[in-house]
Amino acid sequence: VPRVSARAAILVTGTEVLGGRVSDSNGPWLSERLGELGVDVAQITIVGDRPDDMRAALEGSARLALDLVVTSGGLGPTEDDLTARVVGEWSGRAMVLDDALEEQIAEILRPMLSRWPHLSAEAIRASNRKQAVVPEGATILAPVGTAPGLVVTPAEGRAGPTVVVLPGPPRELQALWLAAVETEPFARAVAGRTPYEQRMLRLYGLPESEIAETLCSAADAGVAMDELEITTCLRRGEIEIVTRFAAGDAAAYEAFAAIVRARHGAALFSDDFSLIDDQVAAMLLEKGLSVAVAESCTGGLLAARLTERPGASAYVAGGVVAYSDHVKESIVGVAHELLAQHGAVSAEAALALADGARARFGAEVGIGVTGIAGPGGGSEGKPVGTVWVALRADDGRQIVRRALFPGSRSEVRERTTTLAMHLLRRLLLGEDDGAAV
Amino acid sequence: VPRVSARAAILVTGTEVLGGRVSDSNGPWLSERLGELGVDVAQITIVGDRPDDMRAALEGSARLALDLVVTSGGLGPTEDDLTARVVGEWSGRAMVLDDALEEQIAEILRPMLSRWPHLSAEAIRASNRKQAVVPEGATILAPVGTAPGLVVTPAEGRAGPTVVVLPGPPRELQALWLAAVETEPFARAVAGRTPYEQRMLRLYGLPESEIAETLCSAADAGVAMDELEITTCLRRGEIEIVTRFAAGDAAAYEAFAAIVRARHGAALFSDDFSLIDDQVAAMLLEKGLSVAVAESCTGGLLAARLTERPGASAYVAGGVVAYSDHVKESIVGVAHELLAQHGAVSAEAALALADGARARFGAEVGIGVTGIAGPGGGSEGKPVGTVWVALRADDGRQIVRRALFPGSRSEVRERTTTLAMHLLRRLLLGEDDGAAV
Repeated sequence: VPRVSARAAILVTGTEVLGGRVSDSNGPWLSERLGELGVDVAQITIVGDRPDDMRAALEGSARLALDLVVTSGGLGPTEDDLTARVVGEWSGRAMVLDDALEEQIAEILRPMLSRWPHLSAEAIRASNRKQAVVPEGATILAPVGTAPGLVVTPAEGRAGPTVVVLPGPPRELQALWLAAVETEPFARAVAGRTPYEQRMLRLYGLPESEIAETLCSAADAGVAMDELEITTCLRRGEIEIVTRFAAGDAAAYEAFAAIVRARHGAALFSDDFSLIDDQVAAMLLEKGLSVAVAESCTGGLLAARLTERPGASAYVAGGVVAYSDHVKESIVGVAHELLAQHGAVSAEAALALADGARARFGAEVGIGVTGIAGPGGGSEGKPVGTVWVALRADDGRQIVRRALFPGSRSEVRERTTTLAMHLLRRLLLGEDDGAAV
Repeated sequence: VPRVSARAAILVTGTEVLGGRVSDSNGPWLSERLGELGVDVAQITIVGDRPDDMRAALEGSARLALDLVVTSGGLGPTEDDLTARVVGEWSGRAMVLDDALEEQIAEILRPMLSRWPHLSAEAIRASNRKQAVVPEGATILAPVGTAPGLVVTPAEGRAGPTVVVLPGPPRELQALWLAAVETEPFARAVAGRTPYEQRMLRLYGLPESEIAETLCSAADAGVAMDELEITTCLRRGEIEIVTRFAAGDAAAYEAFAAIVRARHGAALFSDDFSLIDDQVAAMLLEKGLSVAVAESCTGGLLAARLTERPGASAYVAGGVVAYSDHVKESIVGVAHELLAQHGAVSAEAALALADGARARFGAEVGIGVTGIAGPGGGSEGKPVGTVWVALRADDGRQIVRRALFPGSRSEVRERTTTLAMHLLRRLLLGEDDGAAV
């Protein structure tokens, strides 16, 4: 998309993040927010708490022609929290103690000091004075935790991007980001941006290569594909097609979306950013139905996913984790003979689990899941990754599906819950296999 | 730690990762592997699938004095997969078609073509020929998926780091990484490294500021703290202290660890990288005990966590998700009068859930969880975040704990499962509250 836009980079600091033991959520979060504002993100860089490496990252970003840098982390009270100082230096600004900010931080710390009375009050005050030393002339964002945020422009006569300095804890970062966006220097830094729009199509149940072919055929059909920045990716077993375009180019997008709809209508389940989880929750609420699950190989993961959303108690009647045949029989009420005849990993067992869950919990819809998550337990006829998911409603309508998922134990478990969510959506839409005879 | 070590940077490409919708796991994974090899990671950079930005990132890394760059992604068959070409250019090497590699890729694609017969075989072959075009003189790592890996050294007479080029899908990346490490150019690139050791202490149940004080007191007590690179971080409600030191400095580490042990012995639960999940699983297996859960606010998350490990069926008897009072009574067997008298969020209810789970599933240990995950449902006496976790063994020994967790619904749910895992460990160690009268 060859349009001029404001360009930003994100700089995440933290030795524990760089070391790989902790995964960074701030970079992705900031990137999504910048994208929504129509700011183009050129890169996300993660460095340790070493001033030289932080400086090198800032200098390295010079060739990216940035308008904005957003930093995360390194604002704490300890010695290795150096971001404010490095950014001040890089922007050509002296560091000064802000008295008002120092008092603000002291105010915030008072209740904490009374809660942990054996901590040295003087040591804490000294270390937090450090947090009140900021680049001269910076716009200060009032702390949400104990660390303030900063918006730092280059000193008089210097070129370079405006730097938004945010603390690392996600809750503080997110609150201070909202404050940063409202400041005047931020508005000036991103003034050149093109308003972009972003849309998403989500599909389930087809190979990613199909989408590649659809992209080609859209171009052949005359859709102005060069006006669209399209990214496809596989996520939790679903395909996401994200399209970004300048606000004036909506027609090209609509033409593209029409082609996807025509070719993959059955697989397309979301065009409004809604997740399968949102859709299932909304449909259950709207229809006043409740669901109960009896799960073997997913071991509680499907129940956990169904109860993830606030208010889930309105439509989740309950669940049973039934690993052993004994539990399947005694708690869920699956017949011993059925398991003996068909085995625990079978269509019959999945349906019996669905029926048992429905009956035991008094739900309108029952879901039964059984399979071999691995790494052990596979056989030639039922290799690792084999799962059966069955749903049956109280009016007898049912869906039963077998799948063979690749990947690790946790991948098989997650893919299985995704399959169950999609089958639940289909049942709720009336796209079931009919009632059993 | 002022010692000379080989230095590396990691370059992750992918518009979907840069955009923040997909979180990158390859950067952290590679960083951990490099750390284990004693290679110092200077930064992780994420860029989109744009050759200019990838080039800028490579050039920006010049001031880091690197020995090694590891790239992830951008090796696929489509037009926007450009990594091999950009790396070749940057290393001063021409791109050439490798016939053997082309044949290898064709071989791999054959079964796929027969599975999706309507795909155009010719189009696929053409796009995959692209994957066989590599920098001249590069060491080729045979594909695990369809993309090969590469180890590319600077062309004759050029300076700069060796580049390891790996595909983006984690399974392929991980397999080809092992192959890359075995190559001669890789060994040469990291030859200057100092062997480092890394240790981890994990603690539960104390504030992070306590650790800051302990670090200070260790220095006061004469521990050679300058020989240790110590990082502390909060993770899933636990504190991790990671220490990295040159192989000769183990004495300093042992002195530091002794001080942590003396001050925080009760909170310290792991000094060998083991997770609480590993410990609980090992103890249950060793003692031949099984556990059953009845969970309200965590809605299956505790069962899912307990069943996450291969072989969990040996020690997880089962679980019930019991949101409503009705289910607590009818399925778990909690007395109606108990819930009426004490409420569903109470020590009594948690113990009754634990007993019910134990009895229904025939387990030796029962765990009951009840609480208010929010965002709704809180009251003055029982605010959002209030949880009760109770455990009772078949010999009557029990632990009952109340907690008040801050954060979102999902944070409360996750913290609650962590608390339950730690209480289970204590019960299994005999650190319980005794038997109820």
